[in-house]
Amino acid sequence: MKTVKIGLAGLGRLGLIHADNIQGMKHVELTAISNLDETVNKQVQNKYQVPYAYTTYEEMIKNQELDAVCIVTPSGFHPRHIQLALEHNLHVFCEKPLGLEVEGIKRTCEVIEKSDKVFHLGFMRRYDKDYLYVKEMIDRGDIGEISIIRSYGIDPIGGLESFVNFAKKSPSGGIYLDMSVHDIDVIRWFSNSEVKKVWATGSSKAFPELNDLNEVEIGTAVMQLENNITAFLVAGRTASHGYHVETEVIGTKGMVRIAATPDKNKVTVFNDQGVVRPTSQSFPERFREAYVDELKDFVRCIREQTKPEVTALDGLRSTEVAIACQHSFEQEKLVEINYEG
Amino acid sequence: MKTVKIGLAGLGRLGLIHADNIQGMKHVELTAISNLDETVNKQVQNKYQVPYAYTTYEEMIKNQELDAVCIVTPSGFHPRHIQLALEHNLHVFCEKPLGLEVEGIKRTCEVIEKSDKVFHLGFMRRYDKDYLYVKEMIDRGDIGEISIIRSYGIDPIGGLESFVNFAKKSPSGGIYLDMSVHDIDVIRWFSNSEVKKVWATGSSKAFPELNDLNEVEIGTAVMQLENNITAFLVAGRTASHGYHVETEVIGTKGMVRIAATPDKNKVTVFNDQGVVRPTSQSFPERFREAYVDELKDFVRCIREQTKPEVTALDGLRSTEVAIACQHSFEQEKLVEINYEG
Amino acid sequence: MKTVKIGLAGLGRLGLIHADNIQGMKHVELTAISNLDETVNKQVQNKYQVPYAYTTYEEMIKNQELDAVCIVTPSGFHPRHIQLALEHNLHVFCEKPLGLEVEGIKRTCEVIEKSDKVFHLGFMRRYDKDYLYVKEMIDRGDIGEISIIRSYGIDPIGGLESFVNFAKKSPSGGIYLDMSVHDIDVIRWFSNSEVKKVWATGSSKAFPELNDLNEVEIGTAVMQLENNITAFLVAGRTASHGYHVETEVIGTKGMVRIAATPDKNKVTVFNDQGVVRPTSQSFPERFREAYVDELKDFVRCIREQTKPEVTALDGLRSTEVAIACQHSFEQEKLVEINYEG
Amino acid sequence: MKTVKIGLAGLGRLGLIHADNIQGMKHVELTAISNLDETVNKQVQNKYQVPYAYTTYEEMIKNQELDAVCIVTPSGFHPRHIQLALEHNLHVFCEKPLGLEVEGIKRTCEVIEKSDKVFHLGFMRRYDKDYLYVKEMIDRGDIGEISIIRSYGIDPIGGLESFVNFAKKSPSGGIYLDMSVHDIDVIRWFSNSEVKKVWATGSSKAFPELNDLNEVEIGTAVMQLENNITAFLVAGRTASHGYHVETEVIGTKGMVRIAATPDKNKVTVFNDQGVVRPTSQSFPERFREAYVDELKDFVRCIREQTKPEVTALDGLRSTEVAIACQHSFEQEKLVEINYEG
Repeated sequence: MKTVKIGLAGLGRLGLIHADNIQGMKHVELTAISNLDETVNKQVQNKYQVPYAYTTYEEMIKNQELDAVCIVTPSGFHPRHIQLALEHNLHVFCEKPLGLEVEGIKRTCEVIEKSDKVFHLGFMRRYDKDYLYVKEMIDRGDIGEISIIRSYGIDPIGGLESFVNFAKKSPSGGIYLDMSVHDIDVIRWFSNSEVKKVWATGSSKAFPELNDLNEVEIGTAVMQLENNITAFLVAGRTASHGYHVETEVIGTKGMVRIAATPDKNKVTVFNDQGVVRPTSQSFPERFREAYVDELKDFVRCIREQTKPEVTALDGLRSTEVAIACQHSFEQEKLVEINYEG
Repeated sequence: MKTVKIGLAGLGRLGLIHADNIQGMKHVELTAISNLDETVNKQVQNKYQVPYAYTTYEEMIKNQELDAVCIVTPSGFHPRHIQLALEHNLHVFCEKPLGLEVEGIKRTCEVIEKSDKVFHLGFMRRYDKDYLYVKEMIDRGDIGEISIIRSYGIDPIGGLESFVNFAKKSPSGGIYLDMSVHDIDVIRWFSNSEVKKVWATGSSKAFPELNDLNEVEIGTAVMQLENNITAFLVAGRTASHGYHVETEVIGTKGMVRIAATPDKNKVTVFNDQGVVRPTSQSFPERFREAYVDELKDFVRCIREQTKPEVTALDGLRSTEVAIACQHSFEQEKLVEINYEG
Repeated sequence: MKTVKIGLAGLGRLGLIHADNIQGMKHVELTAISNLDETVNKQVQNKYQVPYAYTTYEEMIKNQELDAVCIVTPSGFHPRHIQLALEHNLHVFCEKPLGLEVEGIKRTCEVIEKSDKVFHLGFMRRYDKDYLYVKEMIDRGDIGEISIIRSYGIDPIGGLESFVNFAKKSPSGGIYLDMSVHDIDVIRWFSNSEVKKVWATGSSKAFPELNDLNEVEIGTAVMQLENNITAFLVAGRTASHGYHVETEVIGTKGMVRIAATPDKNKVTVFNDQGVVRPTSQSFPERFREAYVDELKDFVRCIREQTKPEVTALDGLRSTEVAIACQHSFEQEKLVEINYEG
Repeated sequence: MKTVKIGLAGLGRLGLIHADNIQGMKHVELTAISNLDETVNKQVQNKYQVPYAYTTYEEMIKNQELDAVCIVTPSGFHPRHIQLALEHNLHVFCEKPLGLEVEGIKRTCEVIEKSDKVFHLGFMRRYDKDYLYVKEMIDRGDIGEISIIRSYGIDPIGGLESFVNFAKKSPSGGIYLDMSVHDIDVIRWFSNSEVKKVWATGSSKAFPELNDLNEVEIGTAVMQLENNITAFLVAGRTASHGYHVETEVIGTKGMVRIAATPDKNKVTVFNDQGVVRPTSQSFPERFREAYVDELKDFVRCIREQTKPEVTALDGLRSTEVAIACQHSFEQEKLVEINYEG
């Protein structure tokens, strides 16, 4: 079986996870890395015996050995990096979101559309076994027609400081674009429908300094979808109990919840607090397997020359909804979304 | 200890529960009942050896032996029945809501305000041990400043048919007034704040005939409060798993959920379905003790000549918010609430 | 309705609970108390306006107004106190166990047998709604034929010090007699079968000083029943998380657990420990309603002149099994039980 | 990195799982298989492109390309197959148990002891993340000194028919040897202590025909360990709710449970049964990752020339205890275990 050779762009927290996952796959090679910090590059090169290391993305994609790239650079660079890769005839795996502003994403979508290369967008929840289990329940009709979807993504408070440092340097695009795109994608995926109207609110009661960064500690958005589903989402950065990703679907025949208590494992502790279930503490922990499985699917698509289920249009739509949430929050009003093309 | 003599108005489902609770209390007598259906009156009179039975409320309150009335008549009658009782110098326990339209409620509030009799409004969740436990956590600061409150009240589908029959005969006022007033009261009670804006949506996908009755199968409302708390509530009539009342509070220091899985008891069944927790099937079951405790508190207030914590104003505010939700739902827009006086 | 007048013997922790429950019942009067400590007697007399107070049981039962007694004296006195009450023509409610040694209990059983007065034994778990729910499941055949029963009773460590003080003064009879009789009664009740063989073990690793008192910190007993059910029980005094009473039944068709996580309420807390369910902290808290309901049933039996379901023989059998466990533990061997008569 | 070449012996249910896991590992090759059924061999050879296939184990181990074997043959063959492999200078991974009778296992242990090849025994629970989490809690002292361990292994009833067919053809060694060795190993691993005495009981109430096969539907064993820990285990074949593996540790400082409700995933379903958690349906599902991780550890040991934590002596001791349970069950008495050497 021919080895698929991948170049990885960006070695931040998530980039390092992808490095480990790529290198763990059989018949797949982490052939190149590109990243500004040469010290990190050295470490990764040694750890995984990576043949090539670059300080710029542009250099890396010229490497003729590569079959594909995995893009984990800052979100603002995604449109340009995707286009460059496709021009160099490389398959592309790109982390969410597709970009920070709609026009650039639309142009990127066109380029992707015209290319015959595989384009895979990193909505890893679509590969999580729990989300897949519920998607199958929905598609089988187990819960009837959907009336309401609720989805939470709340980061552990332990990560707040590093987020603040990060946000000072480069704009996150706001909590909806930075965090809620996952929930928005799940809502669209589960409902097979588009968001029509949103109303978003939020507050920064524990860390009012977030206001100065144009960020918010905890935000909500309620959405009305085309098929008259109501969706409610919460995005936050200050969970004291861990990494809280939870999704609920209420249908005409029943109700289902994913990770309502986001347990870390199957262990229950009886101590002087009461009955305690330890919780997941981070997205790498919670979605460890999903991150592996999405890359496996990317490689499968390359080998079988098929397209992944998730498309660039999914990336565009999620971003449009997230941006509408941000507008609603900033302007304190109900926002209607008009999708053109 | 002097016996408190109570007249009970209305012997529907909830009236019968109150009858049983009144009659079970020590030093309290169910002295009179008023209800249109004489067959039911006979049964209740025999079962509890009630001295007096009437077919009209107006007759009953003339009974000089009575110390107090417990009003469980249809919601539209509440304002008039309260006023009559106070005029006859009777203490009043009245089921929620205070009424179906704001003007009548406001006049009732004025009458209550001027009276020195005890007025007690049936927001039984304020007497439920779980809700009290969380209220204490909030007041102690255990969960910090509140950012978000989520509250669900979903009736079991088994009761839908009888609701439809009921709604055909007398208007419920809509799902927000009929069901969500409890959640609205909890939100106000937990947050110590008033609702400013609401946006309500809903659908009747399983039972579209509800649309013809001006009712809805499942409704949501998102609210912004004066202290920038966001509240999200769901009211529904078609839960397949039982009676789902659930409340969540997200604060800056932690998060707490009441009845997230509305368990019936402490029993876990391992059968061919998996691991199953039986659930509460009705409000009388879920709030059995709270219904007893609220009446105990009513009697305590009468004996000690004090006022209950919950006031007529609480009833007015909850109704105003519920009506605003109904407007928002009907007009499909964000509604701001202006409280005067 | 004629008032049932009850005399209460013993005002320890459980005695005070019974005092409160008796006094809260309609048409029932706490007419007399007997207890050594006159200060406590005064307090109780004032709190509940009890007409008569005595420092000895023997005096109290001469009171001609009494219809019944509730015996909560130290276990060793039970046989004598029961006999005296029956001789004075009083109905008897007696706390478990029936006594500390078999011969006295057998004689008591004979006296009870001959009397036409109501005799009610305080196995309150038989009145707990969760235990009743499972008993009904068993009787309906929901879980098939029973293969295994597991039952835990572990006291919170907070109560250890007061237990040690208590045990220094008067023998508890050992952990099986003091605590496991409840579990043994449940096993016999659920299985409709008698225990044939027992093997008991135990240890005092945290508090080895318990060995000197002939007590044990945590004990286990495995039992084989006549219908080839195996029962496993744990009794302990050092739970860090609260009061842990849990019972499991494994049948040929399914499995059921009561209070597997002995939750205090329906509240789930998400804090820096993880997802926490608060737990019951004491038997009065866990079995609050059951204590009320068993007394209600006692009064019902008196009024209706019927016999309670639980009998003196149940008390005898439970004690015999508990004593066999204690022998097995002390002699480190398998013990067979021979029931005569 | 040099590829480790493995020959797999036995292609039953578990053998096929190992085939898939071996073939999924990077730098590891499934080089040969040996199995009686040539049709299965063909399928596996095609599916994983296995270079060599044999109908006898003896032939396979002569293949000079092999570095190691993975033995998943019937338990009775294990001693001989292990010895043969070591004689051919191959590293050995062997499924539990080490064998069905003590003498053969002892001789095998001696051979293993003298060899410098890696010997790895398939106690996969030692690689399960939940069990590892609890082992760490114990070693850190989080739950104090251990007083009691309880461990359940109950197979889903769906597998009973195939078990009966299997048991008719080749003896399983009884439920304790076939199933409980995992629990016994966990008890020894968690407690760092040996079992001194056992008492085992059991019944076949749903499937009395199991008696004729010298099998039992559900068995229990209570054990006393050298450091005065009591262990209670249940092994069964008729769980209606799925695959129930659960372990509890009660210590002087707290209590911990692994998989008390053996959930399949993080999904909670609210349907007309109540609140339902789906459960694992089989050991391959429950221990999927552990099976992968134990093989990874085997390969790591080969590469690093180290010994795995679990030893042949662990296999011997678990078998001795399981056999003592079987004796106790058959002879209906308490059995003391004497370990020689």
